[in-house]
Amino acid sequence: MGMIDVTLKEVVYREAVAEGIIKLRRDTLKRILEGRVEKGDVLTIARASAINAVKKTSELILLCHNIPITHVSVSFDVLDDERLRVRVLVKALAKTGVEMEALMGASAALLNIWDMVKSYEKDERGQYPHTSIERISVVSKVKGEAIT
Amino acid sequence: MGMIDVTLKEVVYREAVAEGIIKLRRDTLKRILEGRVEKGDVLTIARASAINAVKKTSELILLCHNIPITHVSVSFDVLDDERLRVRVLVKALAKTGVEMEALMGASAALLNIWDMVKSYEKDERGQYPHTSIERISVVSKVKGEAIT
Amino acid sequence: MGMIDVTLKEVVYREAVAEGIIKLRRDTLKRILEGRVEKGDVLTIARASAINAVKKTSELILLCHNIPITHVSVSFDVLDDERLRVRVLVKALAKTGVEMEALMGASAALLNIWDMVKSYEKDERGQYPHTSIERISVVSKVKGEAIT
Amino acid sequence: MGMIDVTLKEVVYREAVAEGIIKLRRDTLKRILEGRVEKGDVLTIARASAINAVKKTSELILLCHNIPITHVSVSFDVLDDERLRVRVLVKALAKTGVEMEALMGASAALLNIWDMVKSYEKDERGQYPHTSIERISVVSKVKGEAIT
Amino acid sequence: MGMIDVTLKEVVYREAVAEGIIKLRRDTLKRILEGRVEKGDVLTIARASAINAVKKTSELILLCHNIPITHVSVSFDVLDDERLRVRVLVKALAKTGVEMEALMGASAALLNIWDMVKSYEKDERGQYPHTSIERISVVSKVKGEAIT
Amino acid sequence: MGMIDVTLKEVVYREAVAEGIIKLRRDTLKRILEGRVEKGDVLTIARASAINAVKKTSELILLCHNIPITHVSVSFDVLDDERLRVRVLVKALAKTGVEMEALMGASAALLNIWDMVKSYEKDERGQYPHTSIERISVVSKVKGEAIT
Repeated sequence: MGMIDVTLKEVVYREAVAEGIIKLRRDTLKRILEGRVEKGDVLTIARASAINAVKKTSELILLCHNIPITHVSVSFDVLDDERLRVRVLVKALAKTGVEMEALMGASAALLNIWDMVKSYEKDERGQYPHTSIERISVVSKVKGEAIT
Repeated sequence: MGMIDVTLKEVVYREAVAEGIIKLRRDTLKRILEGRVEKGDVLTIARASAINAVKKTSELILLCHNIPITHVSVSFDVLDDERLRVRVLVKALAKTGVEMEALMGASAALLNIWDMVKSYEKDERGQYPHTSIERISVVSKVKGEAIT
Repeated sequence: MGMIDVTLKEVVYREAVAEGIIKLRRDTLKRILEGRVEKGDVLTIARASAINAVKKTSELILLCHNIPITHVSVSFDVLDDERLRVRVLVKALAKTGVEMEALMGASAALLNIWDMVKSYEKDERGQYPHTSIERISVVSKVKGEAIT
Repeated sequence: MGMIDVTLKEVVYREAVAEGIIKLRRDTLKRILEGRVEKGDVLTIARASAINAVKKTSELILLCHNIPITHVSVSFDVLDDERLRVRVLVKALAKTGVEMEALMGASAALLNIWDMVKSYEKDERGQYPHTSIERISVVSKVKGEAIT
Repeated sequence: MGMIDVTLKEVVYREAVAEGIIKLRRDTLKRILEGRVEKGDVLTIARASAINAVKKTSELILLCHNIPITHVSVSFDVLDDERLRVRVLVKALAKTGVEMEALMGASAALLNIWDMVKSYEKDERGQYPHTSIERISVVSKVKGEAIT
Repeated sequence: MGMIDVTLKEVVYREAVAEGIIKLRRDTLKRILEGRVEKGDVLTIARASAINAVKKTSELILLCHNIPITHVSVSFDVLDDERLRVRVLVKALAKTGVEMEALMGASAALLNIWDMVKSYEKDERGQYPHTSIERISVVSKVKGEAIT
C-alpha cells in the first residue's frame, strides 16, 4: 500500500469532466436562479469553491498525488424545476489522471450550494427531507499523447 | 453576504448523520469486502479520510464557520452486491449545526473509496461506466438544549 | 518568544474592522462595477476570499492563536473613479483580539481583486504602473465585557 | 469564469518583485532594529512568514494556479524613522507569472511584523492610530524565454 | 536567508529513505500486531498519515520547496518485542532532494502510532514512561542522472 | 474506529511538555550557536515552525481532535558538543490532552533544524552519517481541575 509509483510514467495531457446533481425545493432553485439567496450569489461561490477544492484534492484523497492543474472550469445546467447539475472540467499535463480532482470539484460545488441554501431547505424540525445530491459521476476522461 | 453572525447564538449539543452510496462493479465490491484491493484496506482509509475531511470542512465550504468537533464515527453497510453505503456521524458543542461537516465526511469517504479502486472500475478506454456516487443526504440532525 | 500565553485571559466579545484600498485604472474599476470582468464577479469572489483568509489567519501569522470566528462581513465602497475600498468586520468570543484576522481578510480581498483584473491592469511590458494597494489599517477594535 | 486555461502556454522563467511599507511608531521601529521586541526576532519571523505565504498563495487567491516556486528571498529597508519596507522576490519556471505570489509574500511579511509589535503600537484604548500598511505594489516582473 | 534558489538546477531522479523507531510497552506492540487496538488498524492509519505528511512537508518545513512527489511507500519492521520501525521511501523528479519529505513521513507515521495507542501507554498518572521515539534518520539518499 | 467521543468530557486545563534531541556534527552545532548558518537564524525558525506545527496537529494526526491552543513556548538546551535538545510546552483549556500537539511541535522544530543545516551535515556522497533525531518523548503532562 502507498502512493502509486508514477515516476516513470510520461507526462501527457490529461482531462476529466465530472458532474453531480443537487435536488432542491422548487422555491429554492428559483431563488438561486433569480439571485434572491440571502447569503449571496450561489453559482459564483459554487464555482470558486470547486476551483479551491480541485487544488486541495491531494489533502483530501489520502493516497493521491499532488498534480499541477492547468485549467478548471465549472458550468451549471437546470435539469428541471428542482434539479441543478454542476459540471467540472479539469486539465493538466501530468503523469496521472485528473478524474479525482474533477470529482472533488463537483462534490465541493454541490456542498457549497447546499450550505448557501440551508435555511430554505430545512423543514420546521431542522431536517432536510427535500435535499439530496444525486449521482456524482465521471462524464469523460481524456489521456493525450506523450509530450516529447 | 458573508459568514452568518452566530455570535449571540447559544452553544448547544449538535449532531448530524449524513450518508452516501457508491455503486461499483460487483467484482470490485467483493474485493473491498475480502481485503483484496492492492492499494490497501479500503474501509480503514475511507474512515480516516472522512475524519480528516470533517476537520477540513471550513476550508472547503467557503462561507461556513470553523466548528470544534468532539466526535466523528464512520460506518459502512453493503446494500446489495454493487452498492456500499457510508454513514458519518458528527458531534459538537457549537453555535451552528454540523450537517455540512457530516456531508463533507461522507463525500470524502466515497471519493477515497473510488480512488482506491480506480484500476478495477475503469473500462478498457479508461472510462467509468459502472461507477457513481448515488444520493448523498442528511439522515438526521439533532439540536440539543442550551448548556447553561 | 512563542505564542503568547492567553490561558488565563477571559473569553470576551471581540470585534475588529480593518480596511484597505486598491487603486486601479479607471477602466478596470468601471468594468468591476458593471460586471464586465471576464474572470467573473469580482466583488463576490473578493468577499468569499476574505472569509476564507480570515479562517486561515493562524496558518499565515506564525505566532498567532487559532480563534473561533463567529462572523465575517465584507463591504465595498467606491472612493473615486480609481479607488475601491474593502472593509472587513470580524467578530468572535475569544481570549485575544481579532484585528489580525480582519487585516488578513482585507488583504486577501484586495489581492483577489488584483488577481481577477490582472489582464486589464498590466501595461504592454507586463508591468503594473497603475495598480497598488494603499493604506491597509485597523478602523476600530472592540473588546467587550467578560462573559461569566 | 474559472481558473484560466494555461495548458498550452510554455513553461518559461518567471520572476516578480513585490514590495510593501509598514508605518509604525518610531519607538517600535527602533525596537525591531535593535532586537528588543519581546515576541522575538521580527525580521526573521517576517522572512519565514513571507516564504510560507508564497507557498500558500493558491489557497488564498481562489482562482489562481498552484505554481512550483524555485526561489523566494525577502529583504528589508528602513525608509525613515517610522517606515520599514519589505521586498519579496519570487522565481519559478512556470506557465503563468508569479506576481500574486510575491504580493502575497509581502503582505504576509507586513502582517506578521504588525502582529509581533501589537503591544507597542496599540494606544490606551486598544486602537492603532499610528499603524498602517502603505502602498503594496509590484516593483518588477520578468518573463523569460521559452525553455525548449 | 530565504528559500534556496534552485531555478537553474536540473530536474533529476530523487529518492530518499528515512526511518524511525517507536518504543512501546510489550502489550501494546502485541495489540498492534494482532489488530486489537480499539481505535482501528494502526499500521494502515500510520501508512496513510505518512503519505499525507509527505505531501504537506512544505507547509511544515518553513524554508523548503514544494516538490511534486511521484511515489511514497511505507514499511514496518518489528525489531524486538517493544520496538517497531517505520521506513518511508519517497521518490520524485525534482530540483532538490526529498530527504525532508521522507523524514516528515516517518515522523508523522510514528506520531500517529503513538496517538492510536495512547490509552495503553499512559500510566495511572497519565504519563508516558514507556513510550518514546528513538533515532529518526536518513537511511539513504539517491540523486540520479540529469534528464535531458 | 473513529475520532474518540469527547462530547461529554469536561473542559479542563491541559499542559504537556515534549522534547527531542538532534545529533549534529560538532561544527554544525557551533555554527548554529554562533549564528553562522547561511540559511538564517536556526533557533528562531525552529521556534516558529514548532508553533506552526502545533497549530496544524489535527491535519497530521488523522484521528485527533482540533484543540484551541492557548500557549506554545519552545526552548533549547545544548546537551554536549553535538547534541541540541528542543522542548515544547503547550497549554490549552480542552476536553483532551495536548501531548500530541507538543510532540508534533518538537518533531517539527527538529526537522526544521535539520533542513537548515543540510549542507553542513551531508557527506561527500550526499548522505547523513552524522545526523539523527534521538529520543522524542513526553516529559510531563498535566490535567487540571474541571472549570465550572
